[in-house]
This record gives sequence, C-alpha cells and structure tokens, in this order.
Amino acid sequence: MAVETIKWINGAARIIDQTKLPRQFKYLYCRDVKTMWQAIKRLQVRGAPAIGVAAAFGVLLGIQKFKGSDKRKFLQLFHETCDYLSTSRPTAVNLFNMLNEMRAVVTHNPQADVATLKKALFLQAMTIFEADREVCRQMGEHGAKLIKNGMRCLTVCNAGALATVDYGTALGVFYSAKGRGKKFSVYSCETRPLLQGARLTCWELLQQKIDTTLICDNMAATLMAQGKVDIIFTGADRIASNGDAANKIGTYMLAVLARHHGIPFYVVAPSTTFDLKIKSGRQIPIEERHSDEVTHFAGVPTAPKGVKVYNPAFDVTPAKLIAGIVTEHGIIRAPFVKNIKRLLLN
Amino acid sequence: MAVETIKWINGAARIIDQTKLPRQFKYLYCRDVKTMWQAIKRLQVRGAPAIGVAAAFGVLLGIQKFKGSDKRKFLQLFHETCDYLSTSRPTAVNLFNMLNEMRAVVTHNPQADVATLKKALFLQAMTIFEADREVCRQMGEHGAKLIKNGMRCLTVCNAGALATVDYGTALGVFYSAKGRGKKFSVYSCETRPLLQGARLTCWELLQQKIDTTLICDNMAATLMAQGKVDIIFTGADRIASNGDAANKIGTYMLAVLARHHGIPFYVVAPSTTFDLKIKSGRQIPIEERHSDEVTHFAGVPTAPKGVKVYNPAFDVTPAKLIAGIVTEHGIIRAPFVKNIKRLLLN
Repeated sequence: MAVETIKWINGAARIIDQTKLPRQFKYLYCRDVKTMWQAIKRLQVRGAPAIGVAAAFGVLLGIQKFKGSDKRKFLQLFHETCDYLSTSRPTAVNLFNMLNEMRAVVTHNPQADVATLKKALFLQAMTIFEADREVCRQMGEHGAKLIKNGMRCLTVCNAGALATVDYGTALGVFYSAKGRGKKFSVYSCETRPLLQGARLTCWELLQQKIDTTLICDNMAATLMAQGKVDIIFTGADRIASNGDAANKIGTYMLAVLARHHGIPFYVVAPSTTFDLKIKSGRQIPIEERHSDEVTHFAGVPTAPKGVKVYNPAFDVTPAKLIAGIVTEHGIIRAPFVKNIKRLLLN
Repeated sequence: MAVETIKWINGAARIIDQTKLPRQFKYLYCRDVKTMWQAIKRLQVRGAPAIGVAAAFGVLLGIQKFKGSDKRKFLQLFHETCDYLSTSRPTAVNLFNMLNEMRAVVTHNPQADVATLKKALFLQAMTIFEADREVCRQMGEHGAKLIKNGMRCLTVCNAGALATVDYGTALGVFYSAKGRGKKFSVYSCETRPLLQGARLTCWELLQQKIDTTLICDNMAATLMAQGKVDIIFTGADRIASNGDAANKIGTYMLAVLARHHGIPFYVVAPSTTFDLKIKSGRQIPIEERHSDEVTHFAGVPTAPKGVKVYNPAFDVTPAKLIAGIVTEHGIIRAPFVKNIKRLLLN
C-alpha cells in the first residue's frame, strides 16, 4: 500500500488529513500535542488502530520539548499529556490501550532517568507503530480464507489503510484476498453523517482496483433481500469480554439485517481493540457528536433551523449476531467469552 | 394546514418547489404539461398522493390549449398527454390510477363532444384533488387511535402535507393525534440520498410544533435497541393485493429492524395507492435514479470519481412485517389478501 496514514518524521507526526479526502490529498504535520488532540477530535486521523498510534505519537509530541533532568517534572508532564490525549475521543479503546502501553514504560522503569525514559518511550511508540503493520497482515491472512470466488461482500465506514498504519482491518481482508488472486466485489455503505464509506473506503478500494459499488446506508437491506450480499466485514472500536463490539453507527443495523437474511457478519479487529476489563457492550461509552454533522453538508443546511438531533457516532453489536471476530491470532467464534480468553490471554 | 402543496389556479398548476425546502419556500407555476412532467421527474412535486393529483392536473394542462371541436384530434392529444405523463416516474401507482380515472371520463362519455369532455375532465381532476383532502382526514382519524400518550414514533421520508393535497398520510396521523390533545414525540429519519426526512418532514413537524428529533437512517436500529421507539408509521407508493408495500428506500430496513425489536410497523396510505392488479411486491417496478444523487451534495462531490453506484429510490416491505395498513376506510390487518379485498372492493 502506498497510503501512509500516520508516520513519525523528524520530530513530527505526519498524518493524511482525512477530512479532505477524496477531493484533496493533503498531509498535516502535528508538531505539538494540541494539534494531535485536535486532529483526533476532528477525525483528521481516525480508525481505532490509527488513533492508538496517534495517541502514542501524541505522547512523544508532548514530552519532546522537555528540557533538563528533573524527573518529577518530567513525569508530571508525561501524565498530563497522557490524560489530555485520553479526552480526545471516548469510544475506541485502542487510544486508551496504547496510552497504557506508554504508561507501562514509565511504571516498568522506576529507576530510569529522564533521558532513558524519553528513549524508551520513543522506542515503545515505534513498536506500537510497527506492530500495527504486522497485525494488519495477519488479520488479512486469516480473513481472506472466508472469501470465496464470486462473493459479493459488504462493508461500512472505513476499516482500511486509512484507519491503520498498514492496510487495514476489514479492508485488509479484501486486500489479502485480492493478493491471493480471488475474484469478488464489494458494496461500500456511504456511512452517514461523515461519509467515511463514500469518501475513504471507495477511494481506497478503487486505488486497489477492487470492484466497488457505493450505496446509501438505507439500501443495504434491499441488497440483502435481493440475495446480492454473501458476507459482511466491519471493523470495531472496542470489543468487550463477551464479544459485543462497538463500531461506527450503522454497524448494528447491518448485523440485525444480516441475521434476518442469513448472511454471515464478521468483525475484523486486532487484539488491541479488546477491552477485557468490561463484561459487555453496555459498558462501552458511546461518543455523541455535534448536531451540525447531521444538519449541514459542506456548510449548506440540510434541515430546518432549530430541529433537535441525535448523533451517536457508534453503536454496539451484540456478540450473538457476530459469526466471528477476525484477529491477528485467528478467527474467534462462539462461545465468545471462553474463546476470547483462550486466544487473547494465553 | 397552511401548506398548499399543489393547487389549480387560473389555468395553471401551482406547486411548492420541494427541492428548495427548507432553505427557500418557492412556488412553481406549471402552465404546460412538459413543465409538470419535469416537476414530477425532478421531485419538485413528490409523494404518491400528490403526484396522482399532479398527473390529473397535467392532463388539464395538456388539453387546455386545444382549439376547435375535432374530437378525433382532441382524443389523440388527450391520450398522448396521459401516456407522456405516465413516463415521468414508475413506482407510485397513484400516478397511473389517477390517469386511469381521467381516461375513464372519456370512456364513459362516448357521445360527448370536445367542450363537454373538457368540462368533465376538469371536474374529474378537481374531484381527485378534493377527494385527497377528505381521505387524508379520514386516515388521520383512524391512525390517531394507535398513538398513546408518551409514545415515541418514528417515520421516514415525507408522508405529510407536502406529499398530499391536505395534511398527509403518516404525518396526518401525527397531526390528527395532536389535534386530539395527545402528547408524543417523533424521530424523523433523514432519508438519504435526497433527505426528504431532514428537509421536508422536520420542516412540517416543526411548523406544527410537534416534538421532533432528526436522525441519520443508520441510527434507527440503535434507537430501537435502546427502547426509544414505540411505533413506526410510513407512507407507501404502491401496495400489492397481498399487502406488500413499496415505499421510499430505507423503509424495508425499518420494517426488519422493527420486527427484530418487537415494534409495530404501520403503513398509512389511501385506497388510491393499492394496485390490485398485481399479486405481490415482486411485480412493483422500482425506480433507479442517477448516481449523482449519491455521489454529490449541493454540487460538491462526496465520493471518488468513477465509483459505481446503486441508487434504487424505493424498496418493498413484505406484508408479513406490517402490523397494519391505515386507509381512509379503516385499518387493514392480516390476513391481508382477504382483508384488502373486503375493505376496498366492497
């Protein structure tokens, strides 16, 4: 993949500004933690694995200008930076998990001085970055086995290269299947209100010359009724111990429709997307975003002034509607509580 | 209701240009049949009952400039006008049913001269117009009985005053319930791609001071899972003899989701929306519209150039997912084949 969603270059985190795609391909250089916080908040960088990496890079941005060797002050800045970054978005657990991995560097090196900690934190961030690449490839390999020649696949939002360091979660499955020479086609749900499916997924899939058809989210049911969808792949932002999976709003709808029409529904997500501290999806905090996202498009109002809006950015798909969760370690199937523990905790 | 969606004024059909709402309230005067054909095609006038009336008025526009008393030439013009109008949009059967009512005037008066026929056709068009008003009120009365205090209702597209001559089908139920002093609230699905829910339904409901919340279509499932939807009302564009109902794309999705969550799903439509010549929804032609509707908004591209698009304007909800069909004659429930015949053919 030529797409470099996020990369550390000479003391800056360079990201592709995804709010401008597909009209403009533009890099944004985050040179301080506030710019990174805003980039995450505004969805200039988005996708659970990518914002995990963005958070780790954000920590580097926060501490890199620290001068001197006062460890107490350094740790204060470090923890403030981590806490600040954790307020950017609430749902994707990768953000919190990667901040915890950064915090663990400090906890596990109680004797280290400031210079040593800075170096160790840099190495940890780069490890997080590199791990995501490897994990994408492994998920792709496991998931590709599910795709048979001639299949019509369906996906929502963008769980691709633009959501990760490498080639994605759900879309990674397509890239891997294409790499193996399989013939298939993909329906991309546009994903209201911010159109990540139309803007980002179609852009990626077309670049990879995958047969792609764009639909509005409310057309998926009709495709299924017509027998035109064989399998569904989505990403995830947080998966509970019981397999309940939060993902972009509209995912739960697809899972219910898939069950009604007898279509297998798969989630593709790395182990960093699991939150084993929570028992079920009921405990996943769901981000609600500004009403403008629904009532305006490109500055043009699309609804009467003063109308109330409900704009949750995510929904939760209960495990019972999920055929399997494709991870870097293999495909997890029901019973999820037992099999998630077995695959991820051993 | 102050809204006059369509009205005959001094030899012209005046319509509210619905493509401009809610930003601009503007009348369009159709003085010839071509302007009316385009207004229907471009959705400047829309909603199954309203385009039935628009078709009848279109016939008047087509024949009103006919001079002389040559009946053969008059009938040729009349039939050409009817045939032309029938090519404007394929799904809503009201269009064809109302053209047939106009044709019946000619068939039932074989001896009439041109002047008499012109007068009879004018009266028939006005009867169609007036009947829609009366029918809206009756559907509203029957449907309002289904709404209990405190209910959270959900609707899609616009089945309101803007879709009819009077105060609507599904929204008429809300207006009637409000008139009876009932307290309830409404979720309006925005209805991609053309946002009739956001633009038109929210505009109407706010004007009537009904508690209204706008959602994207893909958020309905989450609301249902949260127990926030008690009942669903939609309009219809064509209902087959077995109760299968075509309506705006996204309706079938709601019906499947409603079944999964145990929520009653009602269709509200006048008897003119029934097509008793067809056995099931499989025989309903579904209009597919231009890909630009999905890939652009207000002239701004929202998807990469060259992506394929599937853009059906309607879907079909099988009768088995419908709790009841509210008509001017009462609420039809299963078994639909028998009860539709009983209520509509007697």
